[in-house]
This record gives sequence, C-alpha cells and structure tokens, in this order.
Amino acid sequence: MYTKKTYSTLQMAIWTRYETLLFTIIILAVVAAYYFLDLAWLKIPWTPLALIGTAVAFVIGFQNNSAYGRIWEARKIWGGIVNTSRTFGMFVQDMLTNEHTQKPVADKVLQSEIKTLTYRHIAWMTALRHAMRALKPWETTTNHRTNREWDTKPPELGVDLKDDLAPYLTSEDLADILKKDNKQTALLYQQSHHLRKLKEQGVIWEFSFLELEGVLQELFTLQGKSERIKNFPYPRHFATLNHFFMWIFVLLLPLALVPQFGEIGSEIAEKYPLIGNLFVWVCVPFYIIVAWIFHTMERIGRTGENPFEGTANDVPISTIARGIEIDLRQNLGEDKDSIPKQFPMKHDTQF
Amino acid sequence: MYTKKTYSTLQMAIWTRYETLLFTIIILAVVAAYYFLDLAWLKIPWTPLALIGTAVAFVIGFQNNSAYGRIWEARKIWGGIVNTSRTFGMFVQDMLTNEHTQKPVADKVLQSEIKTLTYRHIAWMTALRHAMRALKPWETTTNHRTNREWDTKPPELGVDLKDDLAPYLTSEDLADILKKDNKQTALLYQQSHHLRKLKEQGVIWEFSFLELEGVLQELFTLQGKSERIKNFPYPRHFATLNHFFMWIFVLLLPLALVPQFGEIGSEIAEKYPLIGNLFVWVCVPFYIIVAWIFHTMERIGRTGENPFEGTANDVPISTIARGIEIDLRQNLGEDKDSIPKQFPMKHDTQF
Amino acid sequence: MYTKKTYSTLQMAIWTRYETLLFTIIILAVVAAYYFLDLAWLKIPWTPLALIGTAVAFVIGFQNNSAYGRIWEARKIWGGIVNTSRTFGMFVQDMLTNEHTQKPVADKVLQSEIKTLTYRHIAWMTALRHAMRALKPWETTTNHRTNREWDTKPPELGVDLKDDLAPYLTSEDLADILKKDNKQTALLYQQSHHLRKLKEQGVIWEFSFLELEGVLQELFTLQGKSERIKNFPYPRHFATLNHFFMWIFVLLLPLALVPQFGEIGSEIAEKYPLIGNLFVWVCVPFYIIVAWIFHTMERIGRTGENPFEGTANDVPISTIARGIEIDLRQNLGEDKDSIPKQFPMKHDTQF
Amino acid sequence: MYTKKTYSTLQMAIWTRYETLLFTIIILAVVAAYYFLDLAWLKIPWTPLALIGTAVAFVIGFQNNSAYGRIWEARKIWGGIVNTSRTFGMFVQDMLTNEHTQKPVADKVLQSEIKTLTYRHIAWMTALRHAMRALKPWETTTNHRTNREWDTKPPELGVDLKDDLAPYLTSEDLADILKKDNKQTALLYQQSHHLRKLKEQGVIWEFSFLELEGVLQELFTLQGKSERIKNFPYPRHFATLNHFFMWIFVLLLPLALVPQFGEIGSEIAEKYPLIGNLFVWVCVPFYIIVAWIFHTMERIGRTGENPFEGTANDVPISTIARGIEIDLRQNLGEDKDSIPKQFPMKHDTQF
Amino acid sequence: MYTKKTYSTLQMAIWTRYETLLFTIIILAVVAAYYFLDLAWLKIPWTPLALIGTAVAFVIGFQNNSAYGRIWEARKIWGGIVNTSRTFGMFVQDMLTNEHTQKPVADKVLQSEIKTLTYRHIAWMTALRHAMRALKPWETTTNHRTNREWDTKPPELGVDLKDDLAPYLTSEDLADILKKDNKQTALLYQQSHHLRKLKEQGVIWEFSFLELEGVLQELFTLQGKSERIKNFPYPRHFATLNHFFMWIFVLLLPLALVPQFGEIGSEIAEKYPLIGNLFVWVCVPFYIIVAWIFHTMERIGRTGENPFEGTANDVPISTIARGIEIDLRQNLGEDKDSIPKQFPMKHDTQF
Repeated sequence: MYTKKTYSTLQMAIWTRYETLLFTIIILAVVAAYYFLDLAWLKIPWTPLALIGTAVAFVIGFQNNSAYGRIWEARKIWGGIVNTSRTFGMFVQDMLTNEHTQKPVADKVLQSEIKTLTYRHIAWMTALRHAMRALKPWETTTNHRTNREWDTKPPELGVDLKDDLAPYLTSEDLADILKKDNKQTALLYQQSHHLRKLKEQGVIWEFSFLELEGVLQELFTLQGKSERIKNFPYPRHFATLNHFFMWIFVLLLPLALVPQFGEIGSEIAEKYPLIGNLFVWVCVPFYIIVAWIFHTMERIGRTGENPFEGTANDVPISTIARGIEIDLRQNLGEDKDSIPKQFPMKHDTQF
Repeated sequence: MYTKKTYSTLQMAIWTRYETLLFTIIILAVVAAYYFLDLAWLKIPWTPLALIGTAVAFVIGFQNNSAYGRIWEARKIWGGIVNTSRTFGMFVQDMLTNEHTQKPVADKVLQSEIKTLTYRHIAWMTALRHAMRALKPWETTTNHRTNREWDTKPPELGVDLKDDLAPYLTSEDLADILKKDNKQTALLYQQSHHLRKLKEQGVIWEFSFLELEGVLQELFTLQGKSERIKNFPYPRHFATLNHFFMWIFVLLLPLALVPQFGEIGSEIAEKYPLIGNLFVWVCVPFYIIVAWIFHTMERIGRTGENPFEGTANDVPISTIARGIEIDLRQNLGEDKDSIPKQFPMKHDTQF
Repeated sequence: MYTKKTYSTLQMAIWTRYETLLFTIIILAVVAAYYFLDLAWLKIPWTPLALIGTAVAFVIGFQNNSAYGRIWEARKIWGGIVNTSRTFGMFVQDMLTNEHTQKPVADKVLQSEIKTLTYRHIAWMTALRHAMRALKPWETTTNHRTNREWDTKPPELGVDLKDDLAPYLTSEDLADILKKDNKQTALLYQQSHHLRKLKEQGVIWEFSFLELEGVLQELFTLQGKSERIKNFPYPRHFATLNHFFMWIFVLLLPLALVPQFGEIGSEIAEKYPLIGNLFVWVCVPFYIIVAWIFHTMERIGRTGENPFEGTANDVPISTIARGIEIDLRQNLGEDKDSIPKQFPMKHDTQF
Repeated sequence: MYTKKTYSTLQMAIWTRYETLLFTIIILAVVAAYYFLDLAWLKIPWTPLALIGTAVAFVIGFQNNSAYGRIWEARKIWGGIVNTSRTFGMFVQDMLTNEHTQKPVADKVLQSEIKTLTYRHIAWMTALRHAMRALKPWETTTNHRTNREWDTKPPELGVDLKDDLAPYLTSEDLADILKKDNKQTALLYQQSHHLRKLKEQGVIWEFSFLELEGVLQELFTLQGKSERIKNFPYPRHFATLNHFFMWIFVLLLPLALVPQFGEIGSEIAEKYPLIGNLFVWVCVPFYIIVAWIFHTMERIGRTGENPFEGTANDVPISTIARGIEIDLRQNLGEDKDSIPKQFPMKHDTQF
Repeated sequence: MYTKKTYSTLQMAIWTRYETLLFTIIILAVVAAYYFLDLAWLKIPWTPLALIGTAVAFVIGFQNNSAYGRIWEARKIWGGIVNTSRTFGMFVQDMLTNEHTQKPVADKVLQSEIKTLTYRHIAWMTALRHAMRALKPWETTTNHRTNREWDTKPPELGVDLKDDLAPYLTSEDLADILKKDNKQTALLYQQSHHLRKLKEQGVIWEFSFLELEGVLQELFTLQGKSERIKNFPYPRHFATLNHFFMWIFVLLLPLALVPQFGEIGSEIAEKYPLIGNLFVWVCVPFYIIVAWIFHTMERIGRTGENPFEGTANDVPISTIARGIEIDLRQNLGEDKDSIPKQFPMKHDTQF
C-alpha cells in the first residue's frame, strides 16, 4: 500500500515510459508516413471513433470500479481478521478458568495454554499470508519490468514457510501441519482439537467451548473469503475485451487525428506556409497524451486487480498480520523488546 | 474458469469468426450497393445514431456489470460452501464425544460415525453440483458452435449421479435419496436425522446438536442461494432489449458510415481520382471493427450470465467441490493416495 | 418469469405495436407538415437535443438498474423463504421428541404434531403469496392492453384465499385467521402458540423452543421484506420525471430530425431531383426506430418495477411456494400422488 | 409516499411554476437583448458547454442515485422495525409463562404484563417517529412555497409528544421518560428493567430473558440507523457543488443557444425574411424545456434527500407505525373498534 | 459535518480562490500570447479533447461516488458504535444482579461496578476518537491554506489523550493502558477481565457473561472497521491518475478554446471590427468557469476521501461520542449538570 498522497509526476513518467515510447514510435511513424508519403487522403471519420472512445472510457470505468471493489473487499476481509484475532485473544484469556475443573489447574499451566493457543493463531495468520503470496497464472503484474523496478518484494517471498511457522508451534504440531496441503485449515483443526481437550479437562466450560468454536468458524469464513479473492480473478473475458477495446481505440486514433492536424496545417499554410507545413507534427505530443490517458486508465485497473500480489497498490497483509501479532503479544503481557518489529516500508510502501 | 491472464488475439478471432464473417458480408453488400448502384444519396444523420450508440454502450455496460455481479455472487456462495464444509468437518470431529454418553461408545465407532457424516456431506456437494449442471431453457451458450468448440464439458456431464453418489452413502441411504426430487435437500434431512439419533445416544451433547443443526441451516441457505442463481436468469426482458438495441445500432451503422467514407472519397478524388473512387471500400475493415466491438461487448455479457453452465468463464464448482473433498478427507487422516485427485484443466480452464 | 433465452422479434413487435403506431402517426404528421406546408424553416439545433438524449439515456439506465435491483431483491427474499422453510421442516422433524417429556407421547401423535406445524407453514406461504398478488394503486402494468393480452393471470387471482387455506388448517384455526387483517402475521402467532404448548408438554426441549422461535423470527423478517417491496414502489417522483423526460425527448426529436433529412434531400436533389424531393420521408422509419428504442427502454423498466404483479417478468412466487410445498411434503414421507402438482406454465411463463 | 402511478402533468407544472417563470424571464431578457441590441456577436462555443452539460447530467444522476439509496435504506430500516415489532409481540406472548415461577402468577396478571410491554413498545415507536419529524437545519424542503402548497403535514406536527405517549404508558413511566433527552432510548431501558424484574420473578425464564434482550438490542440498532439517516445529510459539499454546476450550465446555455437560433433565423431569412427575422424567439420555449429538465432533475434529487421530512416522496413512517400498532393489538386480542384507525391519506399521499 | 443546506457562493469563491487565480493567470497568458504574438495557428481539435473531458468527468464521478461511500460507511460504523454503546449500557445495568451470587452484594457495590464498566466504555470511545484524529501521511487536506482557514480544529487536537482518559479510569487502569500501543484494544481487554472477575463472583451469570463478551466482540468489530477506513486510503494510484487526467484536460483546454473564440472573433470582425478583434478575451471568464468546474469536482472528492480528518465534510465523531456519553450517563441516573455539554459547533460545523 502506497502511503503518500499522490505518486509524483516523475514516478508516473518512469512507470509508463515504455508505453510512452511505444506511442511515440507509433505516432512518429504515422505522421512520417503522412508527411513524406503523401497519405493525407487516408482518414477515418471522427464520430464512430469518438463513440468507441466513449464506450471504452465507460467500460474501463466500470472495470476500475470492480478492481477497487476487489481491493476494498480484500481490505475488509483482513480487517475482519484483525477484529476476530483480537476477539480470539480476549476470549482465550478470559475463558480458560478453573471454575469448571474438577481439580484446579495451576495458573502457570493456564497461562501456558493461553500462550499456545495465541501463538498457534499467529501461526495460522502466517500460513495464510504465505498462501496469499503464492503466484497465480493470471498474476503477471510483477512480470512487467516497470513494475519489477519498484522492487517491492513482500517479506513472504524468499522465506521458507516452515521457518516462519517454527517459532509459533511445537515441533510435533509443525510436522503434522506440513503434511497437509492447506496449512491454514489444518491449523484451525488443531486449534479445535486443542480446545476440545481443554473442555474435556474442564478448563473450558462447555458453553465457552461452543463460543470459541464459533470464533474458529468465523476464522474459517475469513480465511475462505481471502482465498476466494486470491483464487478467482476478475473474469478474464471482461478483462481481455477491455484490453482489446482500448488498444483498438489507441491504434485507430492516429488515422483520425493525423489528417485532422493535417487539415489545420493546410488552413494555417494559407497564411504561414512554413508553420502550416510542419503543423502536422504537433499531433505527436497530443496523440501521446490521449493514448497515454486511455492506456494508463486501463493499466491502472489491471495493476490493482489482484490485491495480494504484493505490489505498491495492494492490501498490506504482512503489515496487518504483524500488527495483530504485536497487539496480541502485548496483551499477553510480553515485553515490547521480545516482540518482532513491524515490517519496514520500502519506497513509502507497506506490504 | 479460464486461468490465463488474457485470451489470445487468435482465440478471440476464432471465437468471433462467424460474427466477423457476417459483418463482412453485411458491409460488403452495402458498400457494393453504394458503389455499383449509385446509392450515395441514401444516408442517415450521425447525431441520432451516435446517441443510440452511446445509449447502447451504456445499457450494455450496466448489463455486463450485472453479469459480473451474478458470477461474483455465485463464487461467493461456493466460497461459503467451502467455509461451512470445513467448519462442519471440524465440528463433527470435536463434537462427537463420550462426555455425555451413559455408556461410552468405542473410539472406533465414533470415528466411523464421523466418517459417515463427513462422507454424506461430500455426497451433498456432489448432488448439488450435479443439479447446478442441469440445462435450463435459457442456458444456450453451449448451443453456439464457437462455444461448443472449446469442448469444455464439465465432469458432471456424462456421469450418472447415482454412480457419483454411491461411494459416499450406504446403499439404504442412497435408495432413499434417489426417490426424492431434490436430492440435496433430502441429504440434509438425512444428516439431521442422523445427528438426532446420535444426540439421543448421548454421543452429541444437546447444545452441540443445536450448533450442528445451525450448520445444516447454513448449508440449506447456501444450497438455496446457489439454486436461486441457477433457476432465476438475468431478466429476459432486459437481456432481449439490449440484444435488439445492439443489433439495431449495428445494422443502421452502414447507412451513416458508408456515405461518409463516400464523401471523404469524393474529396480525395479531386486530387487522386483512383484512390478517391475506391476509398469507400476502406469503410469495410472500419465497420467490421466497430460492429465487432459492440457485438462482442454484448456477447461477452450474455456468455457470462449463467455462472454454472460450465463454460470457460463460469464458476469452477467441480474443482471447488473436489478441493473441499480433498481437504476434508486429509483432515480425517486419510492417506493422500486414497483420495481422488483434483479434476484436470482443459484448455487452461477449471471446471 | 419468462423462461426462454429471448423474446422473439414478433413478440416484441406485437407488445409495442401501439407505441409504434403512435410514433408513426406523429412522424407522418410532422413530415407531412414539412412536406406540404413548407415548414422547412422550423428546426431546432441538434447539440442541446443530443444532450437531453444522453441525459435521458443516463437516468433511464439508472432507473432500469434500480428496477432490476428490486426484482433481484424480491427473488432473494423468496429464495430466503425456500431456505428457511426447508430448515423449519427439518427442525420440526428432529426437535419434537420424547427426550424431555414426563410421560412419553405416542410416535403417531408426534408425527401428527409435525404434520400440523408443517401444514400451517404451507398455509403461511399461501397467505403470503395471496397478499403479494393484491393490486396496489401504482401497479398498472396489467391495465395496458398489450400487457393484458399475454393473459398471464397468476393462480391466486380468481381463487378465494379461504379455499386455498382450508386444506392446511383446522377449521378453528382458519376461523381465527380470517378475523385478522394480516393473515400471515396471525399464522406465525399461531405457530408460536403451538410451539409453546408443545414446549410446556415437554415435547419440545426449552432450548429447541428458542431455536424454533428464532426460525419464526426469520420468517417474520422474510415476510416483512416481501411486504416492503410490495408496499413501497420505486419513488414516484423519479419515475414520473424520467417518463416526462423521455417523452419530451421523443416529441422534440422530429423538430431536429425532419429538417436534417430535408437538408440531405436538398443536397441529393441537385443530382437526383425526384429522390431528393422525396427523401425526407426516409425520416419516418428512422424516427420510429429511435423513438421506439427510447420509449421501450423506459417502458421495460416500468414494467419490471413491481415484481409481484404476476406479469411475464416477475418473480414466480406461486411456483416457488408450490415447489417448497412439494419438497416439504415429500420429506414428510407423503406419497407423490397425494401432493399437488407444480403450477403449469403459460406462454413459457412461470408464475 | 405518493401512491399513484405518476404525478400528473398539471401537478408537475404547478410544482415547478416558479422556476419555469424564472427561466422564461431569463430567456426573454437574453433574446430581447439579442434582438433589440444587436448582440448577435456574443456567443460561446457549444462543445465545452455540451461537455459541462454531460458532466452535470452525470453527477446529478449519481446524486439522485444516492438520494434513492437513502430513501430505500430508510424504508428498509422501518421495514425492520415492522418485523422486529411483530417478533417482539410474539415473543412476549409466548415467553411470559408460569413454568419457572416459584408460585404461579395469575393468568390475568400475565396478560397485563404482556399488554404493558406491548404498549410500551408502541410508545417507543411513537417517540421515534416524533424524533424523526423534528426539523434539521438542512431540511428546507418545506420552506419552498410550492412544496408547502401540497400541505402534506405529517400527523406528528402539531401534536404534543406527551399527549401521544400518554395512552401507552403509566404516568410514572411517562414522567421518567420526559426527563430524558432521547426518549426512545430511555423507553428501551425501561423495557429492559421491566424484563429483568419479570425474570427475577421467574415469569421469564433466564434464557428467554437473554433472547428478549437480544430483541431490544435489535431495536436499538434499528432506532440508531433511523437516527443516523435523520442526523447525517447527504454530504453538503457534494450537494452544493452539483447545485452550482447545474445553475452554471443553465445560465450559460442562452449564450450558446440564442446565437444558434439567430443563425438558423439568418438562413431562413434568405427565403422567408419575416419568419427568419423572428425565428430567434422560437428559442424561448426550447430553452425553457432544456433548463427545466436540468433544474427539475436536480430539484427532484434534493427533495428526496431527507426521507423523514414528511413530504410526498418520503417514507411513510406514521402509517407504518400505526400499521404495526394495529397488528400488535389485534394479536393481543383487542377489539377492532378499540384500536385507532390508520392515518388518512391527503392528496394520495401516505405519511 | 457542515449543517446548513448549502455552502454560500461566497464561501465557495473564497475556498477556491487560489485555483481561480491560477486559472485566470493561465488563460490570460494564453490569450495574451494569441493576441499579441499572433499564435492563432496553434490549435488542437475539439473531438479528442471532448472525449478526454467526458472520460475525466466519468472517472471523477466514480471517484466521488467512492468518496461518498467512504464517508457513509464511516458514518454507519459510528452509528453502530452508538447502538452498541446503548446496548452495552442497558445490558450492564440489567445483567449485574444478585441472583447467582453466593452471598448477596450490596446494591451500592453493584451500582459502582455498573458505573465503572460504563465509564470505561466512555474511555474506550475517547481513545478511539483520539486515534481517528492522528494524522496520516496521505491526509493533507488541512495543509491546504484554504482548508486551514476554516479553522475547524477538532476538539481532540491540542488535548492530551491522558487528560481526556483520566476522568473515566482508575489511575491503575490508566497506567496500564498507556503502556500499550493500541489503547482501544487494551481497554476492551480490561473490560473483559473485569467481566470475568464479576462472573467468578457470581454477579454476572455465566450466560450473561457470554452475552456481554459478545458485545465486546461487536465493539472490536466496530473499532476495527473504523481503524480500517482510517488506515487504508482510497487507493493512491486511482486518486493520482484522476488528478493527473483532470490537470491534463484543464491545461489542454486553452489550446482548443482560445482559437475557437478567435475564430468567432474573426467572424464578428466582418461586421464589428473592434468587438471582433477583442472578442477572444471573452474566452477568459468562460475558461475559468469550465476549468473551475472540473477542478472543483475533483477537489471536492479529494477533500472528502478521509472522513476522520476533522474537516467540514467529515463524520462528526467527537459530537457522536459525546452524545453517547450524555445518553449513557443520563440513563445511569446522573444529574444533567454533572454531565459534560455537547461540543460546540464552529462555522456551522459539527466535529
């Protein structure tokens, strides 16, 4: 998540330099053809082209709206993970008691059980954020050189999940988890088995057990929603079509634009022959601007479609998860120094 | 669900080749009529046509938005089935205990009851996905030859429901189910009767029973939502009208476009008689592009309206259901080899 | 609910024949006036008219979106009735037991109580769908002759509610219900009183009673939502205005369109005097098409505004309710022959 | 809430007569200036003005959509009040029993407690609808003379809240309530204290008490949502801007429109000098129509922004509340004659 | 939150005076260049520029819609805090009883516990609103001089959180809270620990305890939602792009507008040489208006993006929180004089 008010003009210019270059080449080629090959006769009418342009602006507007919807929904889901995690931490602290045990359990043992449950919860978040960072076939944002340049590699990449899980689980639990395909799910099953054991000991009252199972149910829901956004892209047929429409518009544009500048040039030529003759070249910057707007409008939507890729515009799940961890462990009474620090920002970007 | 970033240009061209051909014929006929029969006088003004074009782009934009809404809602529902299935699996594992039985039930018997309930749940998902694949009178996407060519037949077609259910049910249960019209509903009734029996034995605590009935209630909700999208199409009057509007626009377009290219040709003819004379034919590719854009924009929405038909843009319910099955059975402790594999993709498409 | 992919062109033509006729008369009158009275000077500029046209397309687009929202919400509510009905049937079957009775109740008596509750639930659905079919002052779709022609009278019309309720209630209950204004509400109060009695007998465990009251609460919610859509139309001031705007546009259109065809005619006349002279009449079909599009776009929204009127585009509540009845009674173990059949479709329309 | 299909043309004409007059004066002044002062040279180009017009139509479209959203949300909230009220009535009737009392309470006493709770609920609705009718600084619809003329004063105005509450509360409760700022909140606190007392007597089982507290919680939610819409207007900065934009467009319009009619007049004058000379006056009705459309489109949104003011387009909360009262009291077994009648409609408007 | 119907024209003029000045300078420079340097030949065609204008209006419309969505969601969340706070107050009053204590607790002690819980709840709201007022890197509205001038500093600024919390907490609790990063979360953990202690004493029945924990869970949800909107801006890439597009349009506009006024001037010059010669300067006010509209449309969205900054268009969280405090303390039976007054409005603005 980029944290400044706006990207700078320079950043935008660098980010879009290849397209800008491409548009420059296209328009220079067309203008040169018109200028040197006397192609002034080749022109297409404006009205249908403007109509295409309007339709393209319209469908891309809708698509960007949907892309925003996906980011915002993803952020809501991770907001829900924040809330449910805090609730889980609170419930666990106040629902493990000696009121229903037949023989009281030592306070230290209770604290240790609370810590085990809380740490396993952190492990669940860790497994989930690693799963969200896996690369899908339709997630190609980072393939684009100008996206790669930002070098905003999320902290999950290059770290083995096993190493990230180890501090939060017993080696036995860890071994069990690594055997399953979906680690997150398996961790919640472990939580439930643990709660059941505590219930059978009487440490958790039977009704508190139901309540805590309800929290696990909520965590399954949040996990599943997050996986849904990860696993189901913005429908590719809409995305493909809008991409095509934009390029068709951008490629047809010179055929209407250049002749029109040519005509303006002819008018001018009556008074200022030199300027009039060269005027068609003024078309170049103007075309670049128009094409750049339409292309960037579409690209910006494409870039934001998949909110977990880890680019500058995505939901900062690593930061959120670490924030919860800090919260939970402070409220467990841990010392601030023993708790990991928040992940650092790179280029004003949270991960 | 198509899993690549975009469809290729070639795929799009093949998919739309009949319309492209039709538009080619239309425009060739009209241009020929203008060219050979001297119909240049027959023209209609641009402004009202552009207005229709804008209106058409607008309403199709809305319709595609709704189509996307249907796909996304369908995906959410099946995401809910994922979450509730995992919860059901977890609850069943930790809520069948000996704490409230008068005489303890052997652990093996408990495990077998857990397995019966979990397998019947998989049967429920199987019945539901078969029901979602039944053909409705308004689901005609697969009738279109270019859609058929993709040959993306979902795994439910060509398999008898009975065979698909058999591995998960006792023969008695299966016989009972097959007598009912709505198999899914009947399966949940069986689950409930089973839970009740276990409750009466004391294997399920009375309050856990209520909790589990709540999960069944949630499954009824999800099943009903999925059936709702299946049984209630995007309102046919809106769909029909938008289809008509698009064709009206596409068919009127030559009457404004060809004369305009004719006029440009006349202008050119003053300087280049030959090019000017032939220029009207330049209209042909341009018309095809504009008509293709409007038609494809509408077709793409139509194709995605019914998210369970099994086409390349639909919700991959077979894959999702199989994924849950794998998850549930791994967490039952089954060996990976004894669990069916995920359905294979065809043409990069999940089913 | 219309169940075909699209309405046929013929159906649309018949459905809109009066407007088409009206537009024909209007444009013939105007063209005749221009042609014979030499009114060519009377014209209005295109730009502001196009602006109105765009604005009209825009607001009608929004209105149709809202109309769709109403239909879709109505369908969701009745989908909710499906789900909650199945849940109610299941809960009733498995929550009436002898576990908490002081002296056991005969199984036959239990079955009879279950049947009474289930049948009263069907009575509730019946009362609700009758209430949904009552005519509201703003529901005038069926007044329009071309709508009436479809003759899609829902099964509730022409049947006395009392006769439809009688098979599902004791005569005492029925008499009590008929005294109340809102029959549906009174039926749910009866259900609750009945459940309470069973709870006091111990047939329903106290906590199951709370659960079942929760289901009744859900039914109140669904009933109330359905009544809300019935009783609160799409705000009349928006609807009125959009209707006016559309007509203003359609009536101003000839003043810009006819002179423009006249001008084109004059140009033509230089070369082909006869064709040029008559060309203004080409305006007639073109005007009809444009006016028809704008009018139909608005009419289609108006037609779908009230989803319970029983027209071809409405939510098929009779079919849904009957479907639930079949489901519930099959799962009560009733013989298929003793259960009423689904309501037949007329003109491919479900009611 | 207006209950007819559409407002009549006459009603609309009367309602907007001041603006119509104003537009007439404006355009007459401008045309006169052009005609008599020879200002034909003063004109502005159409394209940027059309652009403003499109933008204005667009933002007003969005605003009206939001206004509709507010009305619809308000209606949903009051629909929720209907549902929860019925539920509350039902729960109270079946959850006050003698099952858990140590010494049985007389049936008559039970009935009286049920009635007290139900009547206090009606008092809560009454207090809430009075609160919704209080005037906010941004609710100025009724200041406009043409709105006042409709004289649709809701029944809450001119009636003292105290008098309206008195029939439903003991004088002690009433005195207590009147001391609090927020009467509605205080009434729900009273309900809760009453329920607690009944619970302590054993008349309400402890778990039923929790259930009933849950219903009160739901009522707090609904009350709070209703107050939120009342207390938080559509953001004034958006509203202000859209209002300004509309007026800028309407005031610039003559500068483009009049010269254009002037030019058409000049053309005509070549053939019909008299008509051509006077033609510019044809601009007058045309301008009025265009300005009227844009102004009314904006005004209609403004009028519907605050759904509780009591105008013809608002949510009929008085009618809804009275409807619930009738429902509740009929189900208490009260005689129809002893129950107040529904509020009468004025000018086809429910309040 | 601004509480008048509309901002006055003067207020708008002052608020936007810098942009207005800037646009004046730009257009004067360009017109002067045209007028004095004879640059009339430098012009760009209208159609593509109009297309950009339409696209810009469109995307800004969407963005403003999203900004409104954020404000409205923020208001809903704080509405939820109102509702849940009232519920919490009510539950606490009626769920702390002597029914389940082994030896009765004095009524005064009960009241004191109720007061402690209620006051700590007020402390939670206070901590939350302070957190909402912290400045984020992307919240720069108040940097703009014309925004600062309004001088609408929310009451949280300039007050130390510690001082604001002190009246509601014991010094021990306060010290504990101040050690944690997230004060709000820590306060809810304190609430839960307190409830647990009361439950262990029997003052709170075990099931009421679960209910109250459920309310705390709801408060975590509301707090987390509020923090989500605070911590996650409207995606900066969309915002940046729209900002750029608007400026591109505004800066290109003179290149099309000035020459057009120049041409109109030339036409006029045939008849009125002087007026015609100077006419191009009429472009100045017209340009300022068009640019002002597009710029203000974008700025208004930008201003409203972050609903907790405390500007005139934000959600009045201080006022809401104080309102709840008054409500809660009146219902605790406190004297009106001992309760703090509502925060005063400045410039008709609630904070």
